[in-house]
Amino acid sequence: MTEAQEGRRTGILFDLDGTLIDSVYQHVLAWREALEAEGIDIPVWKIHRKIGMSGGLFARALLREVGAPIGHDVAERLQARHHDAFERYRGGVRPLPGAVDLLERLTAYRTPWAVATSGRLATAGPSLALLGVPEGVPIITRDAVARAKPDPDLFLAAADALGLAIEDCVVVGDSVWDLLAARRARALSIGLLSGGYGTDELERAGAFRVYEDPGDLLRHLDEVGIRELE
Amino acid sequence: MTEAQEGRRTGILFDLDGTLIDSVYQHVLAWREALEAEGIDIPVWKIHRKIGMSGGLFARALLREVGAPIGHDVAERLQARHHDAFERYRGGVRPLPGAVDLLERLTAYRTPWAVATSGRLATAGPSLALLGVPEGVPIITRDAVARAKPDPDLFLAAADALGLAIEDCVVVGDSVWDLLAARRARALSIGLLSGGYGTDELERAGAFRVYEDPGDLLRHLDEVGIRELE
Repeated sequence: MTEAQEGRRTGILFDLDGTLIDSVYQHVLAWREALEAEGIDIPVWKIHRKIGMSGGLFARALLREVGAPIGHDVAERLQARHHDAFERYRGGVRPLPGAVDLLERLTAYRTPWAVATSGRLATAGPSLALLGVPEGVPIITRDAVARAKPDPDLFLAAADALGLAIEDCVVVGDSVWDLLAARRARALSIGLLSGGYGTDELERAGAFRVYEDPGDLLRHLDEVGIRELE
Repeated sequence: MTEAQEGRRTGILFDLDGTLIDSVYQHVLAWREALEAEGIDIPVWKIHRKIGMSGGLFARALLREVGAPIGHDVAERLQARHHDAFERYRGGVRPLPGAVDLLERLTAYRTPWAVATSGRLATAGPSLALLGVPEGVPIITRDAVARAKPDPDLFLAAADALGLAIEDCVVVGDSVWDLLAARRARALSIGLLSGGYGTDELERAGAFRVYEDPGDLLRHLDEVGIRELE
């Protein structure tokens, strides 16, 4: 195989929570607890719709909802409170249906793949352990970039870590923020319903295709041009 | 005021969880725990999409997902496990923004209103207490009818309790099951986003109008023909 053929490989850049791991609803309730402890009253569904944004943008989005500024100290405390609350919910967190099989299939196909999450490594680590991610797979967390989703930095860094141009990568995510970040990076994107958003929301945010969960994507890999390397 | 004028009043039939009370995500995780304890593995977002159905139909919908029959004993245990798990989540449950104000406004307007929920009275009772529902307001729970949503029985019983024809009532709900039940009953319906479904899902299920939450409905009561009784 020549270098030129290598260069035409498609890489897959995965979001983590709601895309590979069934953890969105637990994160949502952990944020609800953290916000209420800081006297910020936001209904649960609105938190759900902001999940997956970077912490800074999340704080600014909340500001719009409550009409009051969220200072740096409060933002720091919110992060810590969310982390602590999520630890209490973590016992119920599982891989999404087909997630482990999908990652194994991609590895067997020699399709390059990486994980790019707005979460911090401290929170993401145990979730990655549930998936049995093999060594050598790039894991890009919030700690590694200046701006998280819907900025494209996480996906750009992940493509870079795979040695691929972003135009040769497909982003897989469950939230509109993943899909908006993918569009800003000029990557194609696949939306998964497993984070609890509707098909319409994901398509309107630019999803190239929408599937139920990682298992459903695995059954339709041919539709998105992923096949065994010959 | 004559009897004929009385007869033209519009009644409002409210769903409870996700419509007046911010409890959907807690119910979803409580069902997830109950199902897993029975060895039934269903991702959280799929449970979310079935929430608000009657227990019997919920069990049948789950059957389709897992491809295995859920017997009467298992269904009974699921109900009990869900009830116990939800009690642990209940501490975080709050009224939705504007819910208490909306109900007070309707009472002040002398607009007849009732609550119709697929939940059992034992689970719904504490939520109704959070809202301060005045005496005399009809509360129709799962215990009172043979079939729950998306069958129309709960809303038909609620209209009956108000002494109104169902055609003179507007159903307010957050889930597609509320809206489908309303259509089957030939009532108009209003969808609220506060249960975490998307606008598109609610409109496609037949919502006449969609608002964010009870507070948003309160600000737009004129759009749906509710005004002070002159």
